[in-house]
Amino acid sequence: MTWTISIDDIDDLARGSAVLGTGGGGDPYIGGLLAKEALRRHGDVTVVSLDELPDDAVVACVSMLGAPTVMVEKLPSLDEIMRPVRELSEHYGRPITHIMCIEVGGVNSTIPIAAAAALGLPVLDADGMGRAFPELQMVLPTLYGVTSSPLAYSDEKGNVGVLRTIDNAWGERIIRVAAVEMGCSIMLSGFHMTGAVARKALVRDSLTLCMNVGRAIVDARAEKVDAVERATAILSGRVLFGGKVTDVERATTAGFARGRATIEESGNTLTLLFQNEHLIAELDGEVLATTPDLIMVLDHESGEPITTEGLRYGQRVRVIAAPGDERWHSPAAIEMVGPRYFGYDMEPHRFDGTVRPGLPIADAEAAA
Amino acid sequence: MTWTISIDDIDDLARGSAVLGTGGGGDPYIGGLLAKEALRRHGDVTVVSLDELPDDAVVACVSMLGAPTVMVEKLPSLDEIMRPVRELSEHYGRPITHIMCIEVGGVNSTIPIAAAAALGLPVLDADGMGRAFPELQMVLPTLYGVTSSPLAYSDEKGNVGVLRTIDNAWGERIIRVAAVEMGCSIMLSGFHMTGAVARKALVRDSLTLCMNVGRAIVDARAEKVDAVERATAILSGRVLFGGKVTDVERATTAGFARGRATIEESGNTLTLLFQNEHLIAELDGEVLATTPDLIMVLDHESGEPITTEGLRYGQRVRVIAAPGDERWHSPAAIEMVGPRYFGYDMEPHRFDGTVRPGLPIADAEAAA
Repeated sequence: MTWTISIDDIDDLARGSAVLGTGGGGDPYIGGLLAKEALRRHGDVTVVSLDELPDDAVVACVSMLGAPTVMVEKLPSLDEIMRPVRELSEHYGRPITHIMCIEVGGVNSTIPIAAAAALGLPVLDADGMGRAFPELQMVLPTLYGVTSSPLAYSDEKGNVGVLRTIDNAWGERIIRVAAVEMGCSIMLSGFHMTGAVARKALVRDSLTLCMNVGRAIVDARAEKVDAVERATAILSGRVLFGGKVTDVERATTAGFARGRATIEESGNTLTLLFQNEHLIAELDGEVLATTPDLIMVLDHESGEPITTEGLRYGQRVRVIAAPGDERWHSPAAIEMVGPRYFGYDMEPHRFDGTVRPGLPIADAEAAA
Repeated sequence: MTWTISIDDIDDLARGSAVLGTGGGGDPYIGGLLAKEALRRHGDVTVVSLDELPDDAVVACVSMLGAPTVMVEKLPSLDEIMRPVRELSEHYGRPITHIMCIEVGGVNSTIPIAAAAALGLPVLDADGMGRAFPELQMVLPTLYGVTSSPLAYSDEKGNVGVLRTIDNAWGERIIRVAAVEMGCSIMLSGFHMTGAVARKALVRDSLTLCMNVGRAIVDARAEKVDAVERATAILSGRVLFGGKVTDVERATTAGFARGRATIEESGNTLTLLFQNEHLIAELDGEVLATTPDLIMVLDHESGEPITTEGLRYGQRVRVIAAPGDERWHSPAAIEMVGPRYFGYDMEPHRFDGTVRPGLPIADAEAAA
């Protein structure tokens, strides 16, 4: 199904993507402003489902990379957003025909809309993760052999680069230090792939899911029903814990926003560990859920998503968990995004608390 | 005058460039091996003087960037040396017609010879500094508005990038962190300019000077005359001090080899401060010479140049100083390469110990 996204959709999209962004991606409303401005100037954007994507389409992502704390401080102009896409196109030697979201998450779900509007291109109803992750190589296309190269990047000062690396992990290493030096946040475009590959490698219908989640939260409030429960149901997840934020520690180091938060209620303490995104939820020392499944923090009353850098002492929140794309549980994916990769010596726990290894990617596809 | 450089010339070139490299550029003999190998395989290289360079020539440098301590540990293959030149050519859209040395200094005087041989191109009898400096933007062409962009770079693993920055100082910042991440040493090609610009912006006859200095040291030994005095005379310099190396402190930090060495004799102590290259020479606390003039350490007996990472306790050495290109003393240049840039709060002292500010670049040109 092909549909269009207009200014009136952005708030829902931004809200929903901030939920699925599992704490990452920066303030969704600030990112939304940019998309609205682009839509106002350039008109609605066509959203194309993976099923309707031509096999020979040339798909590429456009996104911000850096610490979300910094991203929202220096939102790019529309010119800056288009620059890496144009650079990629020039370096690759073919025009990009479709813009995709590399991840679901505040800024990185709305910036592609802005880019698509400004460039006059359609955007895919899909993304590379079905959630957000902090490092460049952490996308499902990596597991399908899609390379991030050539990776075009630029900063607000006018510095521009193109990088071709032997694998996506090297892309992450080099682009991360460049991003830190360039002011902790850059625009990039890469992961070009054909329509045929995109159909296989991406997570389908993510924009639709974000819109549905975002809208459900507002609707629930209007209907005076529990917004958190409503969002959790749409995500097929469960509420892990509700309580008051009693402590937040964070540090922006090596280009990431790392930290931990504690939430307390009736003598119980939930600890959240994050690196841009929420990675681990533990209740009184017992692991409830970990990456790659989704851990999200919503305002207890309003159901509004709270990003890792939006967490504040005293907030009343509920923490929910939901299943990630089944392919994230494949052994190769767990190596890339499981708790051990992030330095936590534990098995990956699914959103329901169970430890259940996934199938190899080809079989996981079928299960997805 | 056009001449050719052959295998038999490399030892002299390497030795001389290690002298003029003021301690930087890595082990000249290891760099020389690579040039010899290239000349053996591909034949002699034509050396073109600036006077004979066509106005519409396209000149670009090829060099290693990183900590010299690391450079010599992972000398590139000929394929690796050619890669950034080809990448630059492709990105710039025009073939490079002449290879230049970005600086005079062990590896960076011999690698361009190897690149020229392998690419079948002539090399210029010129360089960008007339000495060596540790940072990318520290070349005379920067003062003439020549940009380092596009700057192509690659590592031995196969990672390749092209960078376009708003100025050469930003080129240094971004390329330096990339180099550190890529293993502390990379190959690069950039600073493309026309023959007409090169004739104005480069330091002329540097390869000839290196060969002369390198040859003079060997000849002096054969003639049983003082090799250090002979080299000093050719450079129009003076011997600052002779003694025994009594201490060397060095650390490879942020991609540079930083440190200090002390040399003692008859109760007097000469202190050398370096960052890849020797920057300051002080005798018992009195400044004898500083960047941008040349400070060089030669073996007391043999006259062989000793690089900053070749300095060892117990070596008997003489420290000499010689005038740098007069344009380095222009106010804009002093801002870029004077002692204060490197964190030493002192006036630039010329090789003869005087403090004599330079003229603006246009007037300095005439004086040079």
